[in-house]
Amino acid sequence: MNVLVLNAGSSSLKFQLMNTKTREVFTKGNCEKIGLEDGIFGHSEGGEKVKETVDFPDHGAAVRKVIDLINEHGFEMDAIGHRIVQGGWHFTDSALVDDEVLAKIYEVAPLAPLHNYAEAGVIEFCREAYPSIPNVAVFDTSFHMGMPEMSYTYPLPKDVREKYHVRKYGAHGTSHRYEWKTAKEMLGDRCHRLLSCHLGNGSSLCAIEDGVCRDTTMGLTPLDGLMMGTRCGSIDPATVCYLQRVGGYTVDEVDTMMNKQSGLLAMYEKTSDARDIREAALKGDEKALFALDMFAYRAMLHSGSMIFSMAGVDTITFAGGIGENDWPTRQAFCEFLEWLGVRVDREKNKQCVGGIGGVISAAGSSVTVAVIPTDEEYMISLDVERLVK
Amino acid sequence: MNVLVLNAGSSSLKFQLMNTKTREVFTKGNCEKIGLEDGIFGHSEGGEKVKETVDFPDHGAAVRKVIDLINEHGFEMDAIGHRIVQGGWHFTDSALVDDEVLAKIYEVAPLAPLHNYAEAGVIEFCREAYPSIPNVAVFDTSFHMGMPEMSYTYPLPKDVREKYHVRKYGAHGTSHRYEWKTAKEMLGDRCHRLLSCHLGNGSSLCAIEDGVCRDTTMGLTPLDGLMMGTRCGSIDPATVCYLQRVGGYTVDEVDTMMNKQSGLLAMYEKTSDARDIREAALKGDEKALFALDMFAYRAMLHSGSMIFSMAGVDTITFAGGIGENDWPTRQAFCEFLEWLGVRVDREKNKQCVGGIGGVISAAGSSVTVAVIPTDEEYMISLDVERLVK
Repeated sequence: MNVLVLNAGSSSLKFQLMNTKTREVFTKGNCEKIGLEDGIFGHSEGGEKVKETVDFPDHGAAVRKVIDLINEHGFEMDAIGHRIVQGGWHFTDSALVDDEVLAKIYEVAPLAPLHNYAEAGVIEFCREAYPSIPNVAVFDTSFHMGMPEMSYTYPLPKDVREKYHVRKYGAHGTSHRYEWKTAKEMLGDRCHRLLSCHLGNGSSLCAIEDGVCRDTTMGLTPLDGLMMGTRCGSIDPATVCYLQRVGGYTVDEVDTMMNKQSGLLAMYEKTSDARDIREAALKGDEKALFALDMFAYRAMLHSGSMIFSMAGVDTITFAGGIGENDWPTRQAFCEFLEWLGVRVDREKNKQCVGGIGGVISAAGSSVTVAVIPTDEEYMISLDVERLVK
Repeated sequence: MNVLVLNAGSSSLKFQLMNTKTREVFTKGNCEKIGLEDGIFGHSEGGEKVKETVDFPDHGAAVRKVIDLINEHGFEMDAIGHRIVQGGWHFTDSALVDDEVLAKIYEVAPLAPLHNYAEAGVIEFCREAYPSIPNVAVFDTSFHMGMPEMSYTYPLPKDVREKYHVRKYGAHGTSHRYEWKTAKEMLGDRCHRLLSCHLGNGSSLCAIEDGVCRDTTMGLTPLDGLMMGTRCGSIDPATVCYLQRVGGYTVDEVDTMMNKQSGLLAMYEKTSDARDIREAALKGDEKALFALDMFAYRAMLHSGSMIFSMAGVDTITFAGGIGENDWPTRQAFCEFLEWLGVRVDREKNKQCVGGIGGVISAAGSSVTVAVIPTDEEYMISLDVERLVK
């Protein structure tokens, strides 16, 4: 089956047309600056990259441009898979879109307003403009809906929890699911308790026991847990009240600060891009090194909670921009875990960069450690195939 | 040396007069409803408990009443030790009070407004009314000031961190220090890496390596970390923004909700008192059992981070109202850690209640587990003796 995977942000639309069986990618790209001036239409076919200036008045215009491109090239397209950030309390699995599913995506949108409204808008456009093509919604949260009640419940007043659906939802579920599926295929029974580390500009850990989410580090929103590119991760929630009261910030200012101005960016101050920060660290920049060491330390602290939630760990996988490329962060993270018998082969670790995966643990390590480059689009396309067939 | 230990809350003043050498307690008690009508003066001497109605217009009146009582009985008093909740960025140790110390306690008061102003007011009164008696300030936070920068830093923008002194301060430092001191005396070298669990209406864990705080669960304020009697502990900090934006709560309402209406109270709904909740759980109340299981689960998750920060653990100690009395919580907590080789002797564990301490781990346990009833007043009196002499 040929599936078009769409991933809408507030002003962007990433796309990829791929075959579920051969995993061949026919075309992929990104529509940027939607709703702004000087929109950018970037796409590649057969290795050739093209960048055009195209005005996108709205997400619908971007979708039309993508599908025109597909038709121009004569590619076939059987169905569309939509990545949805927040499935809220409704979705424990991906869903073939009908009126009810669409209404539910809108209903849970206040939990992720920047993403869900844009994503739902794209689905609406696709249904109207291409009524013969089925749409499937794939949620970043649905994998985590299997967490035990003790893991997802916040001990806040019951009426607040129920009325506003406050709980841990997690995120990166599609990536964590891919890590589980691939690790299981690679390692079989060695993969009973998996710690999946998705480390990138957004970062989360997931404790997966026999394919079921036991606990995860992101919370009500994708702010919680690990330190990230521009997000602070877990800090005392009373900090928000303190900064409003003592610092005179508005709630929106604190929200923006925690989401956009914190994390690696706040520690290094020049950029949030881990590649640039690593380059500076290798040149001896102490602030850069401290930022990355702190990133690894905080990830390691959270891995303690995740591993404890499974009463141990058999396999650790790394994915995401940092997890797949920044081998010194993987090395530092794993060295913190040496007391548990984790041993990494430094040479193997160094080799796994730029999309190359593989086992990096040394012989005799108590835990199998592997780099598994994530492929959320493939995972989405498999869900589409399963639900459309 | 005979030391009067004073512990001022926003409308209360606890006191205890004790000898640092014999640990004899001459008198202790609590002045309640300060600044309100129908104040209560509760005190006990030699096992006899007395409760009188006394109006306390302010904390000064309460101090005067306490010192009058001491004089009536002819007890000697050499110095006063004041428990101060927040020492902020100034104090890495307890301090003999002079003008400068007092000014610093006021300076950091915005970090703990409900406590520090009352406590500083009590010190001021003591200095004026009893100028010949030295005062020592003992901070709940100073023990944690030894944490590495990586542990105490929040990855928020530098100007915000610096201007508003935002970082992890921790709390219960005096109790954790007492646990370390006593465990070291009991166990000697077996106590290299200690996990100190102070579990009560307020709860925190502290990772102590050779007497130095490595990391702790409370944060900028005593809200963070474990689920507590009425506090939610760690939740996604963006929850505070979400409840203001979507729920329409004010910042003060969310602050109050997280501090006063959450935790065990929010899960059980009838009370925050762990003794009553345990009684209900033993009678088969499922909500009560779930609340306590969740308390133990969340404490266990955090213990993962704390143990990882030390790269292992040699000794675990329990203190606080729950830690010293609720043996099923200790049992549940330790059973979560069985995969690490922790083994608790159920009979020994059951015996340690109501102030009885002792080792509760079984022979062959990889970790020594002990109940050590805390004694913050004694620890404060030792600091007073050290600094006054």
